Amino acid sequence: MPVTAADLTLAAQLADAAGAAIRPRFRSNYGLEIKDDASPVTLADREAEAAMRAIIERERPSDGIQGEEYGVSEGTSGRVWVLDPIDGTRSFIAGRPIFGTLIALVEDGWPVLGVIDQPIIGERWVGAVGRGTTFNGQPARTRRCRDLADALLATTSPALFDDGQLHGFEHVEAKVRSTVLGGDCYSYGTLASGHIDLVVEAGLKLHDFAALVPVVEGAGGTMSDWSGDPLHAGSIGEVIALGDAARLEDVVDLLGCRGH
Amino acid sequence: MPVTAADLTLAAQLADAAGAAIRPRFRSNYGLEIKDDASPVTLADREAEAAMRAIIERERPSDGIQGEEYGVSEGTSGRVWVLDPIDGTRSFIAGRPIFGTLIALVEDGWPVLGVIDQPIIGERWVGAVGRGTTFNGQPARTRRCRDLADALLATTSPALFDDGQLHGFEHVEAKVRSTVLGGDCYSYGTLASGHIDLVVEAGLKLHDFAALVPVVEGAGGTMSDWSGDPLHAGSIGEVIALGDAARLEDVVDLLGCRGH
Repeated sequence: MPVTAADLTLAAQLADAAGAAIRPRFRSNYGLEIKDDASPVTLADREAEAAMRAIIERERPSDGIQGEEYGVSEGTSGRVWVLDPIDGTRSFIAGRPIFGTLIALVEDGWPVLGVIDQPIIGERWVGAVGRGTTFNGQPARTRRCRDLADALLATTSPALFDDGQLHGFEHVEAKVRSTVLGGDCYSYGTLASGHIDLVVEAGLKLHDFAALVPVVEGAGGTMSDWSGDPLHAGSIGEVIALGDAARLEDVVDLLGCRGH
Repeated sequence: MPVTAADLTLAAQLADAAGAAIRPRFRSNYGLEIKDDASPVTLADREAEAAMRAIIERERPSDGIQGEEYGVSEGTSGRVWVLDPIDGTRSFIAGRPIFGTLIALVEDGWPVLGVIDQPIIGERWVGAVGRGTTFNGQPARTRRCRDLADALLATTSPALFDDGQLHGFEHVEAKVRSTVLGGDCYSYGTLASGHIDLVVEAGLKLHDFAALVPVVEGAGGTMSDWSGDPLHAGSIGEVIALGDAARLEDVVDLLGCRGH
């Protein structure tokens, strides 16, 4: 079924609830723990996800939920709300207001609605299949990029690549004008708004990338895996986001150099 | 001469003027150029520095000025205002509100007053010798760090290190709990406010680090070069900032491993 106005209203409610849970713990009593995979998690992550799940369970009892912190709740509708309460937990604990809450609606494995919400400085990108992406309610558009040599590239950390991936990434980095590190989901929001041209990352889970796809594509950009194929629930988390889809083949070719 | 209330008032005026020049060009018509050293510069950098220089020339005609974009104007007072209109130009052009305007007053080669100003989200750290550091007018304090194993480390980009420096940095990174990339001057502000523990960088110019020293030290932290010596106008730009000075020897020892 298509994305409805009610879906968008619910997604906004979820983002509001997550933000209300996160704001009091920004730079204050966030209760850091280190998970088994060495990644950090805080009370803010847990409380924000719990707040969103409670709303979905009440409003959409037949939808599934898949969240970073509390796992999978099976549904019966074929629709799943995929939640990352704080994408960029390292930025969050470092006191940087460029992390984000990610909310996606995934239908039959395909992301059809996405929200990137920055609750401290009040920035929200919303995208949905068949509707243009908005930034704080205004239309957001990616920018053209006629040549990768002019591109501004972002990636959160080269440490997230394995050796082969790093090799491919370095081929891309060598072609672009400039690279900016850090950023997590915020890079995809700023790409949707036409401030950067390209994001290349790997190791992302479904909750890390599902929300990004409708935001970037509804703004005129494209997202794919490193082979140029569309991202879905089964993708392995090698991600390209481009403001200008005309550059996709260039990027895929460069990434394909890994291992050679 | 000691830092006076008038110095602090002037520094705040400079930050206000820089912010007024920068804000209209954030995410809009910033006029990117690439300098000979491949670093980016924008109209916002140039206009912000010009605005600050005009104020200093009017208010303190005998003070010197050293700015990133317009170079050195000699003075006669022994005092030099050291200006970086936008530290983190890559973040600025990428649409991330975590760059900063840096303003330092340097006396006889020593930084005695520093401002880190983030004009988009309205955050300002001010430090001066003999006065405590403030964040938006409220006292800022670094946090204790009993063991480097608990530390949150920041650095803008590993690409800014040469091979020997990278080797030393990797020794530090291997000891700490977690590393966050990007950030530029914003990392030093958040360190002064007790959100992160350690910043290790290299390749900084005087205009990149002079303002940071009074901010970090006035908040209870320490800054030094990679040998543990105080930073001054002749330092080569290998910089350590620590929230807890008790960890300085540990960090210097680890950085000393480069080349071995």
